[in-house]
Amino acid sequence: MSEEKYLQNYKKTLFESPLLTVDAVLFTYHQGDLKVLLIERSNHPEKGKWALPGGFVDEKKDRSLEDTVIRILKQKTSVEPPYIEQLYTFGGPDRDKRGWSVTISYTALIAHQACRSHIETVSNVDWMNVARAEKMELAFDHQQILYRARERLRQKALYSIVPAYALPETFTLPELQRVHEVIIGKPLQKKSFRRRIEQANLLIDTGEKRSEGGRPAALYRMREKSGDYTFVRNLEQ
Amino acid sequence: MSEEKYLQNYKKTLFESPLLTVDAVLFTYHQGDLKVLLIERSNHPEKGKWALPGGFVDEKKDRSLEDTVIRILKQKTSVEPPYIEQLYTFGGPDRDKRGWSVTISYTALIAHQACRSHIETVSNVDWMNVARAEKMELAFDHQQILYRARERLRQKALYSIVPAYALPETFTLPELQRVHEVIIGKPLQKKSFRRRIEQANLLIDTGEKRSEGGRPAALYRMREKSGDYTFVRNLEQ
Repeated sequence: MSEEKYLQNYKKTLFESPLLTVDAVLFTYHQGDLKVLLIERSNHPEKGKWALPGGFVDEKKDRSLEDTVIRILKQKTSVEPPYIEQLYTFGGPDRDKRGWSVTISYTALIAHQACRSHIETVSNVDWMNVARAEKMELAFDHQQILYRARERLRQKALYSIVPAYALPETFTLPELQRVHEVIIGKPLQKKSFRRRIEQANLLIDTGEKRSEGGRPAALYRMREKSGDYTFVRNLEQ
Repeated sequence: MSEEKYLQNYKKTLFESPLLTVDAVLFTYHQGDLKVLLIERSNHPEKGKWALPGGFVDEKKDRSLEDTVIRILKQKTSVEPPYIEQLYTFGGPDRDKRGWSVTISYTALIAHQACRSHIETVSNVDWMNVARAEKMELAFDHQQILYRARERLRQKALYSIVPAYALPETFTLPELQRVHEVIIGKPLQKKSFRRRIEQANLLIDTGEKRSEGGRPAALYRMREKSGDYTFVRNLEQ
């Protein structure tokens, strides 16, 4: 049989295959806390439980798995997150009551104000403090996915300025340091943090300043691709 | 409707879902070269092309995605690799002619002698020099998967002794250094390499020695979990 003929006769739906979903762990930073986006499930299974935003691949619309995640997050937040990275793929017979299932999980970051107005209008979508979410009984194995995403984010905060994606487009160095500290869970030395960031040349000084109580601090924005930069020594050292 | 009733009526096969496979990039070290296991495809699609070993989840047999990979690798090599790690999940409408498809890829390492006799008896399975495989027209997007696995392995060789899993259970320090050098693609300083490995206390001296031309060298084996150890500075420094 030729390949052409084989493909004409091939029907995916004739073979049993695990249920396939995509889930996103979307973080933001707001008022001193690291937060994660959760959805209260309105359908079976696990109806009524809080869950990570997720869904199925749309074979007509999506050209990649990242397209799927972005489409789902846009439905929930109205905007596309500036940072998205594949985290891990979980699979097994028991994680979903509908049967053997696989989910490809992603970590994403967004500024709180970027989607604030949209999220406030939707009743079953909310930002939850990560510390609180970690103690909730989330749907499926989402607790495990959240835990893994939290760990990955901690590594990112130690070795890169990826946490800046949880801030508005312009931010001060004390604000950036604060997000890093909240994610790492420890205070960082101000002088050393500032020097490391400056030496790596990751930020652009916008020329503007903002004062928050104290003296005015310079406003920065990220240089293009500076989220990809990895520090050789972590920022705690 | 209750969840129980919902689950009774739920049929996975009623929903179109991407084709789901698992692929493994199994590396070994033999006679000075890094090698990868390839299979000559005997079925459509891409019949006749060389491909990474892979296959479908068996919902009856497999309790996890790692079970799937191990089952498939055991079919090809007769043994279970001592090192296996999830690499990345690739998905899209064009990577497989049968339609929208997703593959969860894994990197694995094994000693050449552990499966030598089995592989020699099978006609369509072979170890290929990685440098050569990278120039071949592999099936599907397997060239891209191989490239990513090669990069991940390079990072592992810089920051851990994971490459030791491509050696027999006992090995000399010069042998371990050689595998690291082949994977990294650069010579390492002998004295510094030896000191770094010793300081991290990752190996157990078996008390035996082996001479290969020169003076006898001590034979080591890996301490339990020493593959998880990450050097703070990479081994080139």
